[in-house]
Amino acid sequence: LVERAVTRIVTPGTVTEDELLGGDENNFVAALTGGDSYGLAFLDVSTGDFVATSADSRQQVRDELGRFAPAEAVVEPGVDAELFGADCMVTRFREDAFDAASAREKLDAYFGAPERRLAGDSEIRACGALLSYAEYTRAGQQDTLEYLNHLTRYDPRDYMVLDAVALRSLELFEPRSVHGREGTTLVDVLDETSCALGRRKLTDWLRRPLVDRDRIDARLDGVEELRGDLRTREELAEALRDVYDIERLISRVSRGRANARDLRSLETTLDVIPDLRELLVDADSGKLRDLRARLQDLSDVREEIGSAIVDDPPQELTEGGVIRDGYDETLDELRETEREGKQWIRDLEAAEKERTGVESLKVGHNSVHGYYIEVTKANTEHVPENYERRQTLKNAERYVTPKLKAREDEIVRAEGRADDREYELFVGVRESVAAEAERVQDVAAAVAELDALCSLATVAAEYDYARPEMREAGAPIDIEGGRHPVVERTEEGFVPNGVHLGGDERVAVITGPNMSGKSTYMRQVALVCVLAQVGSFVPAESAELGVLNRVFTRVGASDDIAGGRSTFMVEMTELADILRDADDGSLVLLDEVGRGTSTADGLAIARAITEYIHDETDALTLFATHHHELTDLADDLGEAVNLHFPATQTGDGVAFRHDVAYGAATASYGIEVAKAAGVPDDVVRRARELVERERERNAVEGATSGGAQEADGGSAPSDIED
Amino acid sequence: LVERAVTRIVTPGTVTEDELLGGDENNFVAALTGGDSYGLAFLDVSTGDFVATSADSRQQVRDELGRFAPAEAVVEPGVDAELFGADCMVTRFREDAFDAASAREKLDAYFGAPERRLAGDSEIRACGALLSYAEYTRAGQQDTLEYLNHLTRYDPRDYMVLDAVALRSLELFEPRSVHGREGTTLVDVLDETSCALGRRKLTDWLRRPLVDRDRIDARLDGVEELRGDLRTREELAEALRDVYDIERLISRVSRGRANARDLRSLETTLDVIPDLRELLVDADSGKLRDLRARLQDLSDVREEIGSAIVDDPPQELTEGGVIRDGYDETLDELRETEREGKQWIRDLEAAEKERTGVESLKVGHNSVHGYYIEVTKANTEHVPENYERRQTLKNAERYVTPKLKAREDEIVRAEGRADDREYELFVGVRESVAAEAERVQDVAAAVAELDALCSLATVAAEYDYARPEMREAGAPIDIEGGRHPVVERTEEGFVPNGVHLGGDERVAVITGPNMSGKSTYMRQVALVCVLAQVGSFVPAESAELGVLNRVFTRVGASDDIAGGRSTFMVEMTELADILRDADDGSLVLLDEVGRGTSTADGLAIARAITEYIHDETDALTLFATHHHELTDLADDLGEAVNLHFPATQTGDGVAFRHDVAYGAATASYGIEVAKAAGVPDDVVRRARELVERERERNAVEGATSGGAQEADGGSAPSDIED
Repeated sequence: LVERAVTRIVTPGTVTEDELLGGDENNFVAALTGGDSYGLAFLDVSTGDFVATSADSRQQVRDELGRFAPAEAVVEPGVDAELFGADCMVTRFREDAFDAASAREKLDAYFGAPERRLAGDSEIRACGALLSYAEYTRAGQQDTLEYLNHLTRYDPRDYMVLDAVALRSLELFEPRSVHGREGTTLVDVLDETSCALGRRKLTDWLRRPLVDRDRIDARLDGVEELRGDLRTREELAEALRDVYDIERLISRVSRGRANARDLRSLETTLDVIPDLRELLVDADSGKLRDLRARLQDLSDVREEIGSAIVDDPPQELTEGGVIRDGYDETLDELRETEREGKQWIRDLEAAEKERTGVESLKVGHNSVHGYYIEVTKANTEHVPENYERRQTLKNAERYVTPKLKAREDEIVRAEGRADDREYELFVGVRESVAAEAERVQDVAAAVAELDALCSLATVAAEYDYARPEMREAGAPIDIEGGRHPVVERTEEGFVPNGVHLGGDERVAVITGPNMSGKSTYMRQVALVCVLAQVGSFVPAESAELGVLNRVFTRVGASDDIAGGRSTFMVEMTELADILRDADDGSLVLLDEVGRGTSTADGLAIARAITEYIHDETDALTLFATHHHELTDLADDLGEAVNLHFPATQTGDGVAFRHDVAYGAATASYGIEVAKAAGVPDDVVRRARELVERERERNAVEGATSGGAQEADGGSAPSDIED
Repeated sequence: LVERAVTRIVTPGTVTEDELLGGDENNFVAALTGGDSYGLAFLDVSTGDFVATSADSRQQVRDELGRFAPAEAVVEPGVDAELFGADCMVTRFREDAFDAASAREKLDAYFGAPERRLAGDSEIRACGALLSYAEYTRAGQQDTLEYLNHLTRYDPRDYMVLDAVALRSLELFEPRSVHGREGTTLVDVLDETSCALGRRKLTDWLRRPLVDRDRIDARLDGVEELRGDLRTREELAEALRDVYDIERLISRVSRGRANARDLRSLETTLDVIPDLRELLVDADSGKLRDLRARLQDLSDVREEIGSAIVDDPPQELTEGGVIRDGYDETLDELRETEREGKQWIRDLEAAEKERTGVESLKVGHNSVHGYYIEVTKANTEHVPENYERRQTLKNAERYVTPKLKAREDEIVRAEGRADDREYELFVGVRESVAAEAERVQDVAAAVAELDALCSLATVAAEYDYARPEMREAGAPIDIEGGRHPVVERTEEGFVPNGVHLGGDERVAVITGPNMSGKSTYMRQVALVCVLAQVGSFVPAESAELGVLNRVFTRVGASDDIAGGRSTFMVEMTELADILRDADDGSLVLLDEVGRGTSTADGLAIARAITEYIHDETDALTLFATHHHELTDLADDLGEAVNLHFPATQTGDGVAFRHDVAYGAATASYGIEVAKAAGVPDDVVRRARELVERERERNAVEGATSGGAQEADGGSAPSDIED
């Protein structure tokens, strides 16, 4: 019987088994505290990533949760657990863990002087409670969390805000459709990383685009240098492909869960470091030089593992054969005894054949009876006196001799002691490697950044991206020949489009037939800005970009029926957030605002909102609409402008163009689309008749409606930048 | 070294491991052939479910695929694999498997005379190819598929058509939102089953609602009887909870993959059958009497297992201890030898103590040296002559005697032979059970139906459902006090609503503020009809329902950006399908048609489509719209009627009501919603001003627009049924 005891508690946020974790994604458990401000902490138990921040409002809490998408959370009693979405399991945890004194004490044990690392009580309490919870899930094996030695605090203001709505509608990480395919998210198309470390780092960068131009430029410098040097980039990528997930490996080592293969994988990875250093020896940019400096050799760790562990160790430690010959004298002696014994037994067959004259005599071994000398029944008369019968087969007898038995005992004893010794030695190696966890983690972080930069450089080179020029916050956005980074990969003949937003063209009202690409166009502008602030080159001929503090999106939500909030309510709530929080450093995307109510109400709301954004927020805004009535806003508002996607009527059909131009669309082509989709001719004919009738009715009214319809086919927005 | 060979090929459609399969869902692999008509076959390798059908059009193929949602498919070369969605892996398989002659031969080996079971060449080729593929994934172990002995052909016309669009928008199986929660699908709220068999059956019924009134009534009779007898229902449920997944068990038995515990589980389950029969002994309805008749006792199978296998067998067959004492003489003898030997050894210690006078003498065993007699160093002088030294410890010596050694050999030999014998006997039992696979499957099917009926009865009783009265196809739908089966569970104060559709009220145009529940209302009408045709009671006070051959839905699709089809194109394509296929036996739900284009085009298309449906298809139609302009259709079209959800202005706010009434809504309350959502007051004020201005403009035009706005607060549709 095996004795059973609780040694771990497995929860969604604290699993560490590779099989249960995606290799490329962090798996966070979060803690949330209240008080003067909210304290937030995120921990990935499998990698040791541990970050903390504060938030002033519920909305800001939601925004930061959106970045990390924790799988699980512990929440201070009394703080609203509803802030977490349905994807996150909220776990009740004992109240005293959130207590300031005990949190401080807990943190102190891991990091020392929490005040130096964290801002304020709430953060300290969140971090402390999270550590307590992580220890709790280890069922009291407290010492096994010692690999948690990096705690990073960040200020939300250091990053572009991308709330859950924006992350979803821009499809940074998840396709919006339930039935979305692979390769349809931003992270998919940017990911040319070579190892899991790099993939997680790239994801982290996307989650938190920078707002500091110096930091952005530093990354861009690194990307530019790597982009220009195909040879180095390819060699780096090849070397990085040999990199195992050392963040998780070292965490397993520290937790005493690593086996010999894990240590070997760690060593193999560390073997790559000198190559990486060598490849970066001529690096110019500050970023790459800094990374090179951080790629410590760690030759002591490598040698420790290399000298102790055999090249291809077995999966199970108990199988033996883990420790190299020559590493330990005692072990070597035991193995020598074993070897000599086996050699003696191997020689025995020949010796006994000669002694007995029985040519068919055999020495063998089976697991139940051990070693034996087998003699066929026909020859048993030649068996010497010191043979003891052991087993009778149909055609043969099996014997042992006292000497053979003694040798066998010797071998078995030596084997047993060698196994014990090996295990002892292995644990010693593992512990001495664990003592270097912090240095290994530093190297892992540098490797991760290098891989992420290489990935961005590869994408920049292979997909013809341009280096963006970053302007100060509030400056205009100018993009020439911009493309949607995801759509351009999947659609042939993608048409690039420029944009100029800023100055007296801060608000653009976009009209044009469906399928012409209004939504894609708006998203592409946002994605170009996000990519730039991640430190990536951008899919465009050129781009000069004011740094954005936030991207807001209000694009088609799906119904939320059982949730009791209708599409329209969701839409209005999101809009209210935008109108409250947007400022002159924001980019706002509005797609078809005001659809979920009566046509008259919708039109009025859309117009009132556009006026408000224009007059009050100063945000850069793209607003796609089917309400052609709104195009007269460009006349009424000083900093608004009309854009449209033209279409050409061709005989009985219609050709959509995908190049944006100044001016309002003169017609919409919904009926043509209906026809192309196979709607019966009778219906199409009747719909045309109805539109025509309405047009005539409006014509009778004459110019009273005041909508100045600009001519089709104006100049493109990028044209006027020159 | 273990010799390795390919013994199975694991693919998404052919996995059989419980850990990889959801317990409640079938996992289908499909085959598709072309020719005069399409042939379709679906096989669940884990349960042996095997069905086939034909389809005349690509659309029909899609509809049938939608029902079964196969994980994998093999497709005849030359047939369009695009018919399968992104969730299905299409596997290339050798061309000759689709050959008519070889398919016929393959089928013949399993079922005999395929012509009697299947309609036409395409079906035969699909089934034959699918069998070949299933065998292929077993890597040539052809005989292991013998549990496939049920092949059911169905005619799509025997079931209500629910295509993928309808399944999704009615949320039968999957929540529509990516972030949907548990409990928000129809199958979730209907599932009160007690075992996996019943869950799969219930899912299958939902997938294929009936159209034959006799079959529907037969199920309803069964549900009604069980609903009325709480005691029997609870006892049935309790008995069914002890039922293992015998479909998968018997499939494992047939494939030679079942262990002793599996056989035990099978027996435990069969033990329940007499209880079930007893509980049904007074059953009245034809359905329950039929099920009782199908619940064969299978006492031979139970006894076979019960007499051979011990009560609590070990997981691994190789551990021994699987077969009962008294089942086999040889085994009993071997065990007796073993027992006697061990007893002799147990007695040895006392005997040797007495013989040697050494009180501390011990008899022990270790895995390397076997049995030994241990004497402390202080007493070795008392050791008799026939002791042979075996091992030296620090404080003791260990010995054997020739007799002890001989006894030990005897025990080891007997153990080895007993293990072999046990395995042999076990395989024999398994094979004789496998020979009864078909009978076990018949019983499993009856158990599954009984569980599904109990589940429906429980839901009917606990949630106050009513028995629907089924009318012939084409007859009106009359529901009084209908509820949405999913939403009523999650929302407090759900307001029931009736509907009358048919006769001169075939097309209902529904207006009213957002959040009043237009979408929920339409879906609830469709779900009541679907439930009824599944054989379930329905969430309503009463319901008289014409049988529907199909439910069409056109409700808000989410964008499909990278797919190159815009929301509007998707919408129009779905509409074209509806206009082509709907007839007087169809129910059509349209939600906000014509939104994705300019306001003028959208309105014209919506009007033309409504006219077409009214004049040409004769389908029963619910059309929710924000185009209040469409309410004048009720005046123009003979069989159209207006419905609306009223709202009441209350001081500065608005109160939504959720009770539907005749007549058109007089106002929409979008601006009030915007205000409630937190949109700034300035925006709200401005929007009101704009609406007012537009209203004045229309008032000037006077009665020229012709829209007769009916008064608010008319009578409810259910009122007029009496």
